[in-house]
Amino acid sequence: MTTAQVNAQRTVDELKELRALTGNEDGAQRVAFTDTWAKAIDWYKAKLTGLPVEVETDEAGNLWTTLRGASDKTLILGGHLDSVPNGGWLDGCLNVMAGLEVLRRFAAEGVPPVTIRVVSWADEEGARFGRSLFGSSACSGTMNPDDLRHLKDRDGILLVDALARFGIDLDKAKESGRQLKDAAAYLELHIEQGPVLESMDLPLGVVLGTFGVERHSIRFTGQAAHSGSTPMDKRRDALAAAAKLALEIRPIAVRNGGVCTCGRVDTAPGIVTSVVAQCDITLDQRHLDADKLAAMYREAREASERFAQEEKCGVEWRKLWDIHPILFHPQLIEFCEQAILETCGVSHRLPSGPLHDAAEVARAGVPTIMMFVQSLYGISHNKIEDTKEEHIRLSVEALDRLASKTVEWIQGQ
Amino acid sequence: MTTAQVNAQRTVDELKELRALTGNEDGAQRVAFTDTWAKAIDWYKAKLTGLPVEVETDEAGNLWTTLRGASDKTLILGGHLDSVPNGGWLDGCLNVMAGLEVLRRFAAEGVPPVTIRVVSWADEEGARFGRSLFGSSACSGTMNPDDLRHLKDRDGILLVDALARFGIDLDKAKESGRQLKDAAAYLELHIEQGPVLESMDLPLGVVLGTFGVERHSIRFTGQAAHSGSTPMDKRRDALAAAAKLALEIRPIAVRNGGVCTCGRVDTAPGIVTSVVAQCDITLDQRHLDADKLAAMYREAREASERFAQEEKCGVEWRKLWDIHPILFHPQLIEFCEQAILETCGVSHRLPSGPLHDAAEVARAGVPTIMMFVQSLYGISHNKIEDTKEEHIRLSVEALDRLASKTVEWIQGQ
Repeated sequence: MTTAQVNAQRTVDELKELRALTGNEDGAQRVAFTDTWAKAIDWYKAKLTGLPVEVETDEAGNLWTTLRGASDKTLILGGHLDSVPNGGWLDGCLNVMAGLEVLRRFAAEGVPPVTIRVVSWADEEGARFGRSLFGSSACSGTMNPDDLRHLKDRDGILLVDALARFGIDLDKAKESGRQLKDAAAYLELHIEQGPVLESMDLPLGVVLGTFGVERHSIRFTGQAAHSGSTPMDKRRDALAAAAKLALEIRPIAVRNGGVCTCGRVDTAPGIVTSVVAQCDITLDQRHLDADKLAAMYREAREASERFAQEEKCGVEWRKLWDIHPILFHPQLIEFCEQAILETCGVSHRLPSGPLHDAAEVARAGVPTIMMFVQSLYGISHNKIEDTKEEHIRLSVEALDRLASKTVEWIQGQ
Repeated sequence: MTTAQVNAQRTVDELKELRALTGNEDGAQRVAFTDTWAKAIDWYKAKLTGLPVEVETDEAGNLWTTLRGASDKTLILGGHLDSVPNGGWLDGCLNVMAGLEVLRRFAAEGVPPVTIRVVSWADEEGARFGRSLFGSSACSGTMNPDDLRHLKDRDGILLVDALARFGIDLDKAKESGRQLKDAAAYLELHIEQGPVLESMDLPLGVVLGTFGVERHSIRFTGQAAHSGSTPMDKRRDALAAAAKLALEIRPIAVRNGGVCTCGRVDTAPGIVTSVVAQCDITLDQRHLDADKLAAMYREAREASERFAQEEKCGVEWRKLWDIHPILFHPQLIEFCEQAILETCGVSHRLPSGPLHDAAEVARAGVPTIMMFVQSLYGISHNKIEDTKEEHIRLSVEALDRLASKTVEWIQGQ
């Protein structure tokens, strides 16, 4: 077997090429199931010319590039070419292009000992229809088609019709699950999309798992009353109760070591001359530990009831969404840390706040790990999303080392 | 001169008649410059049949009913027939119908010593174009036509076009000021629209004046950040700063003896998965004492700057509107209290939180007083707005007594 090396600068160059092709002055525009997304896929496929690979789009629209190895046991490297509207140049596509670069290295060395696949998941972002992880949740089997059947975009176009344009039948999407039949491990590199690595001045980190999430909308109900004629002690102010909760979630998060966010407030009647009769506030709570997540939820709920009582208001909780914490594979955590240490001498273990396709693959029982590369300013889903080119190169090299360790591990099973 | 008495039950009956004619299952629908408002005016005019009065609509759409007296010196009784959409059955029209009842009593006694006029002001509520006190501010001279010229309703109809349908020329509206030439006193009865009299179990109260108002929109600017990937100590949460302010205005109001209200909150990006980058919150502050109003404003402003600093946010204040406190006439305050005591044995002095046409008349230099009658549940601008019929009758009788005392006072000038 010959020895080859990844060309990490090529990944940087290709990402810039993709940005020029599918972005504009407002950022990346590769929203899933649009023409620009299709253009990105065609561009990616053209990059495969000359490689000894098979290319296949599955029933959920996921794009698979397969380098057959001596064994059917498969190492998968994953990412997503789709972006949010006005998105960044790295979110999702770094993972795909770095995966391709690693596949190229294996291909240059001849037939690999195990099969190597790169997958670009369909509609990770869910930006258009409000349902993220479409392709990976279809493949993992957690998706329920009936939850998606009636989803529409802002123009009233049904998800099912947008899918049909790309030859995807919602009711067959879960047949894509067969792609994981021989999967022995799944690796995903991603920009952190948060400020932790930057604040520690570290290029790379090992991701321990994805946070469990409790997501609710909370409605406080008081009484509308004229802002001039109603003395302060005769008010039932729904905003006051919500304001107390918006502040109380912070000690709850800190005490339990998780994160809590109130992201939206709506007031009714919402006029300058009336006490707020009804206040809706969203609460997003995340933790890597299921028990602590449950404690954060319970504490917020109790606090909301206390505040409602203090303000003579009613309170109702409505669940928007929840998911259990998903922990990545212990052996792959070790490999990832070693790969990072060999690449840049220092590593850090951290949870992932956002969900990723990797969480879906882990739920399907495939040993999974993610690696984060530092994000500048902690910002993503925005045209100013950025990562130092030096760090991008380090991330490609570390992913390559991780892939080699994992292939060896799969061989030994 | 003969002696006559008011028929307070007739006022109750007429108000019910007006409700049946111009309301529906959602409440009163007499929005100014609409057909239903015009219907209310026609109904009112028909009630004048047989009375020795002159009827005139002035340049601002105010409707004047004049019972000529021995002197040109004039006592004016005022109110407004317009309502908010889905409004109550008493707000504004009680004042007009009680005024008419008092005028009827004077007319029954022959030629009164001074001229008695009842005015129904045009568009007190400002419900359609967002500018209240249209007719009375035109008459008092405080209105600036250029502030109103571009106002549109929700259907895009210009105020100036809506006025034209009723023969009103915005640029001539202030000529209505001549109506106040001989005005010697102005009396206005109104439902309290607040909970004070009800909580004290009192039917009637003397209004000391209308609150001064400081009305602002405050914008806190933080940084959008992912709800999952951003640790609690790395956030710049604009909602947290606004929530602190929403709570801090309450001790500020109590300490200074006024009222402060945050009526609306808007969050951006306003999504469940992002820390709030920008939070707009409205603040309405009211006090009868100008110095204390200024103190409340200063304290809220200082608090907002402290909270912005604590949350690493920016803060900007934008003035929406302000008005100085308007104090009613000391002699008329005494007369009003006597009239109430003679009617029901117990009185209470209180400020008016809402503005009223009376404030505009007072600003024009006319000695002015208002009397409040208890509102049930403190609720107005709503179909459930109500006052006990017994209290309505007491209010008509007390207004009649106040009118007699005031006429005597005018005569003696």
